[in-house]
Amino acid sequence: MSKRIVVALGGNAILSDDPTAAAQMEALRYTSDKLVKLIKQDYELVISHGNGPQVGNLFLQQVAGESEANPILPFDALVAMTQGSIGYWLQNVLKEALMKEGIDKQVASLVTQVVVDENDPAFENLTKPIGPFLTEEEADKASEETGDTYVEDAGRGYRRVVASPMPETIVEFPTIKSLIDNDVVTISAGGGGIPVVETEHGYKGVEAVVDKDFASAKLAEQVEADYLLILTGVDNVYINYNEPNQEKLEEVTVSQLKTWIDEEQFAPGSMLPKIEAAISFVESHPGAKTVITSLENVNNFFEGGSATVVVGD
Amino acid sequence: MSKRIVVALGGNAILSDDPTAAAQMEALRYTSDKLVKLIKQDYELVISHGNGPQVGNLFLQQVAGESEANPILPFDALVAMTQGSIGYWLQNVLKEALMKEGIDKQVASLVTQVVVDENDPAFENLTKPIGPFLTEEEADKASEETGDTYVEDAGRGYRRVVASPMPETIVEFPTIKSLIDNDVVTISAGGGGIPVVETEHGYKGVEAVVDKDFASAKLAEQVEADYLLILTGVDNVYINYNEPNQEKLEEVTVSQLKTWIDEEQFAPGSMLPKIEAAISFVESHPGAKTVITSLENVNNFFEGGSATVVVGD
Repeated sequence: MSKRIVVALGGNAILSDDPTAAAQMEALRYTSDKLVKLIKQDYELVISHGNGPQVGNLFLQQVAGESEANPILPFDALVAMTQGSIGYWLQNVLKEALMKEGIDKQVASLVTQVVVDENDPAFENLTKPIGPFLTEEEADKASEETGDTYVEDAGRGYRRVVASPMPETIVEFPTIKSLIDNDVVTISAGGGGIPVVETEHGYKGVEAVVDKDFASAKLAEQVEADYLLILTGVDNVYINYNEPNQEKLEEVTVSQLKTWIDEEQFAPGSMLPKIEAAISFVESHPGAKTVITSLENVNNFFEGGSATVVVGD
Repeated sequence: MSKRIVVALGGNAILSDDPTAAAQMEALRYTSDKLVKLIKQDYELVISHGNGPQVGNLFLQQVAGESEANPILPFDALVAMTQGSIGYWLQNVLKEALMKEGIDKQVASLVTQVVVDENDPAFENLTKPIGPFLTEEEADKASEETGDTYVEDAGRGYRRVVASPMPETIVEFPTIKSLIDNDVVTISAGGGGIPVVETEHGYKGVEAVVDKDFASAKLAEQVEADYLLILTGVDNVYINYNEPNQEKLEEVTVSQLKTWIDEEQFAPGSMLPKIEAAISFVESHPGAKTVITSLENVNNFFEGGSATVVVGD
């Protein structure tokens, strides 16, 4: 039986310095070469990705081009648009990498909605900044016109903030699962998925951002993956980081991590949400493991090397 | 055996007067209610859609927001983005319409690439206008900077033009077909598909627009549909339109249509490409039929009413 891996790519790993389409595709080409090695080792690959810089740039363009004939689209539609562009680039270069290895497989990107709870406390405490920096006056004016919330961001100006609620279920997961079962490499839940709430009649888009690692953990749970692979800038997670008793984490249990979370070992907004997403997947079913490592170290890990691996107690 | 219908929705039918996301979803809600009636009659629905106004608006926003940190994305990426937004809206409201009818079916939008021939004569004769109107001076400057071609458009100014090559194959059609076979309602080939050419290593995006009716005809051929349903503003196609001998077309053969094409009965850039797309599907396999009618008349037709139906000789 092939093992199934959900891999969560960072939006920043796709767009770092150079914002052109060609450079983003080149970054994805580098990623694809590494991921295809896993397919060669007979792993089933299920890909999700972030979209932070891409949706930020798109929002800026929407603001710049705003007119009555061409209004700014709501944030759910912008997430959908980045699923289109990043999905296209990734399926294109992944196919290229597969061909290079002589592997005949289909690749498909699916537009993906993620259900959040409209009573999620995140909607009372908006934390996710999006869009351009404004002056206090501009922010006040925008807030008055739209009802949107703006907050001061680290002395650099005012930015719009939206909620970052937890994912409850991925609307399209039965389709995604059936594609994986049919040997298709899928790209889904891009940018954490398009956030929607359940209504009496169906699903309704909301102005929010679902954390892509939590969305990937939910995806991994729902497609019954063996591994959730969270890619980050470092090969391993550390505790007591940059202190004399610094310790590199290799295999760690959920209870150990929970103790360290209580000790505030992991930086909020950075490693902490990744650790929490890792735990949520491992707790979803027996045998589930989350690997947190860098893209550079992925192949080394799956060939028997070291990374931070979160396992059940 | 259920009959399979590929339905090509017009981008203008989604965005006509009101460019807001809410209004576009409302237009798609109206469309979905009609299409779900076909699913209720046990037809398998395969949906494609245009993106003319949407991609035009997106291009305007990209131009308005252009900077070194936020460059204009190439046209293939913009098509992908509209596949994301329109696909999301449509899968959302279609699911709503299915729920209303008590039908439990999955809906999936796929990012779709369409292969065109880099030697297609369309690349020598650019005909498809995109983006904003410029003055002659602006157009000359833009042309010099980018190498893009600009032409004078009906006295309203200068616009960029790109090629409109013919679709050769839909890259993702095996995945689309397997989803249809698994009873999923698919949305694919949006905006005529993302145009790519084949290279030694894989597929490469090109700055072009594939006509959505031709792309839909190719999709219908490749998924072995029974019907291609091309939606337009009128219930039937006419010959000798607005003349004393005006004739409403009902069942017509490919040879009859070819004679009328030679007589220049159909307006280039309007009904003519629809007729040509209709013929290309009907000629693809025995028994294939193309229906050209309005959205308003779709249900009437599939309940035994009249429309223009193109059949083989």
